[in-house]
Amino acid sequence: MNDHLSRKKQSRREFIQKTALAGAGASVLMSNPASLFANNSNSTNMEQNIKSKGYAAFDVSGKLRPWAFERRAVGDNDILIDVKYASICHSDIHQMKGHWGPQQYPQVPGHEIVGIVAAVGKNVTKFKVGDRAGVGCMVDSCMECNSCKHGEEQFCDKGETVFTYGFPEKSSPTGISQGGYSSSLVVRDHFAVHIPENISLQEAAPLLCAGITTYSPLMKANFKIGDKVGVAGIGGLGHMAVKLAVSKGAEVYAFTTTADKVDDIKSFGAKEVIVVNNDLSSLQAYAKTLDYMISTIPYEFNAAPYIICVKPGGTFTFVGMPVRSEITINNLMLAFARVNFNASLIGGIPETQEVVHYCADNQVHPQIEIISADQINEAWEKVINKEARYRYVIDAATF
Amino acid sequence: MNDHLSRKKQSRREFIQKTALAGAGASVLMSNPASLFANNSNSTNMEQNIKSKGYAAFDVSGKLRPWAFERRAVGDNDILIDVKYASICHSDIHQMKGHWGPQQYPQVPGHEIVGIVAAVGKNVTKFKVGDRAGVGCMVDSCMECNSCKHGEEQFCDKGETVFTYGFPEKSSPTGISQGGYSSSLVVRDHFAVHIPENISLQEAAPLLCAGITTYSPLMKANFKIGDKVGVAGIGGLGHMAVKLAVSKGAEVYAFTTTADKVDDIKSFGAKEVIVVNNDLSSLQAYAKTLDYMISTIPYEFNAAPYIICVKPGGTFTFVGMPVRSEITINNLMLAFARVNFNASLIGGIPETQEVVHYCADNQVHPQIEIISADQINEAWEKVINKEARYRYVIDAATF
Repeated sequence: MNDHLSRKKQSRREFIQKTALAGAGASVLMSNPASLFANNSNSTNMEQNIKSKGYAAFDVSGKLRPWAFERRAVGDNDILIDVKYASICHSDIHQMKGHWGPQQYPQVPGHEIVGIVAAVGKNVTKFKVGDRAGVGCMVDSCMECNSCKHGEEQFCDKGETVFTYGFPEKSSPTGISQGGYSSSLVVRDHFAVHIPENISLQEAAPLLCAGITTYSPLMKANFKIGDKVGVAGIGGLGHMAVKLAVSKGAEVYAFTTTADKVDDIKSFGAKEVIVVNNDLSSLQAYAKTLDYMISTIPYEFNAAPYIICVKPGGTFTFVGMPVRSEITINNLMLAFARVNFNASLIGGIPETQEVVHYCADNQVHPQIEIISADQINEAWEKVINKEARYRYVIDAATF
Repeated sequence: MNDHLSRKKQSRREFIQKTALAGAGASVLMSNPASLFANNSNSTNMEQNIKSKGYAAFDVSGKLRPWAFERRAVGDNDILIDVKYASICHSDIHQMKGHWGPQQYPQVPGHEIVGIVAAVGKNVTKFKVGDRAGVGCMVDSCMECNSCKHGEEQFCDKGETVFTYGFPEKSSPTGISQGGYSSSLVVRDHFAVHIPENISLQEAAPLLCAGITTYSPLMKANFKIGDKVGVAGIGGLGHMAVKLAVSKGAEVYAFTTTADKVDDIKSFGAKEVIVVNNDLSSLQAYAKTLDYMISTIPYEFNAAPYIICVKPGGTFTFVGMPVRSEITINNLMLAFARVNFNASLIGGIPETQEVVHYCADNQVHPQIEIISADQINEAWEKVINKEARYRYVIDAATF
């Protein structure tokens, strides 16, 4: 960019940003993260990289530690989010530990991110400074293909979906996307959703992955009110699946290996909670009883005894993504079960906006526990050990 | 059974059988297999075991040799079939070699069986002596449960389905069911279907497994005329899938690893034949193009590149039953593909009758090669080596 164009662009951006700030009112000005620009000579300079601090993995150990890094400058179609909360998904752990393939480090995990818009690029009309915004599992795609144009950006036909962390991203100073365990995020406006005022930011965070990942297949299952819906694995995703299915009128059967979750899960509205024993024999009584079942179990497991709980002709959806992403099924069992089997991958941006509104409007709230950044490693251990109840949400002020 | 009852039952059976024979006319008398009773003192004695001869496996070697054995006596609900033809399915090879679990030997394979009814039990009204009859993959079930009462006997809710060979069967002198590579078969009448006069016996044989196993999922797929249907693996089952789907109005895409089958498959009506190369790259051009796909590949294979040929929301059905019956799928790929995956197991008796009539009425005939019993071992090698074109049918007169 030559000097003239650069100056012209900068002045237009300054104008737009200042206008937006002026229009956003007092609450916005309060939340405007001036600290983000503390190290910049010019706090409104949209050409400079954004300094951010967060927690990153540096190797496959699964241990995170603080890391200062740079985000790209706020582009014409970008927004800068002052992150307020980021919650912990089991996928963060899988990916940082290399369970799905080798990773580039340092890498900042986190794909359940909420905050306040702190700056907008010149083309941005979707957000203004001061808006509450959320970002989930992806931050870019081609935006031109059939899938992208129809709200399924995670399935970009050109394969250009950029998932929120660890994906090659030319615009990033680190060469890969960096996630939400951090103080700020620069993201293409389309990939952020609005967080309405009728839900707290901290309760909205888990909706960006746990919410949409269970909501999308539940909606596609198209069950009727009163239908029997099974949920296997009652963690961060599973407890949202229970609440969402209950809210949509299903009679929910929750399958957990953790006996001391039973009371919680009943309080979420489940009709029955089945404590699955080691030999899985407790599943037998439910053979062919469910109209639909979703599994959120994030490890490879013996799926057959779960699958046969679904009535012949019904569907079983797998949203947990196991190590190496591989599942092995006994084909003969699948034939006997006559159950359709599929897997679902998060959900598109319009549907993500939809689930946020749905949960806000219907008080479908995740059960969360706020932690500080220095508790992340401990929280990860608890997630692995099935001790999370049910989503840890990191207070981004502590990064 | 005491002597009085035994005599009474015997005399009633004699009466019924003789009546049936008398009513069956000259053609029936011609086909009445007197030889079956040659070793019995009384050729109409329904109390004695039936002497049969066939080809059996004696170990996991996959080599068969002649074997003389006994079938149970013809019970009140049974028919005795003078086997005329039995065809070779890849499943015969899998099971005899112990690929699906340890087997009891000697064991006679064969579950595509046609012949002429030679005797009927006193309760039998479905057949009379002289009728043309076929038997497929099962020979008994509870007949009382919900599945059995609704024509899905292969899914007997009590688990009492007796598959045609190698299954525990108290009534069998050998303790297990013995299959169709043999001169005769005793089977509960319900599990035999009529073979109409408008198809030859030898062409009807492969319909009893290859036909029904592909017909049943194709019908459930409920594709519309002009829909694109993929068939992977063009052997005994696959070539029937191509012909059936073409006959039902689909635009068929056939995927084979055997280049010299291309002309044949086009003659079956396929719109395109794709020769799948070792690295599967030839599949890429078909990504997301098919409305439905069925795989008949009888071994574990890299299913992902096939599955992604189906449009999102479509279904992929697996009917091949690999070694150990296990299939491994990349779950992430399945999520990206958005394809429903299921497996299908043969079809029930009413639907088996349906496919036989459909194929007879619409000239959907398997492409067969008649062999004699002493060619079975060679034929098995050819099946394994993909040299079968496309179904070997054994002339039972040569046992």
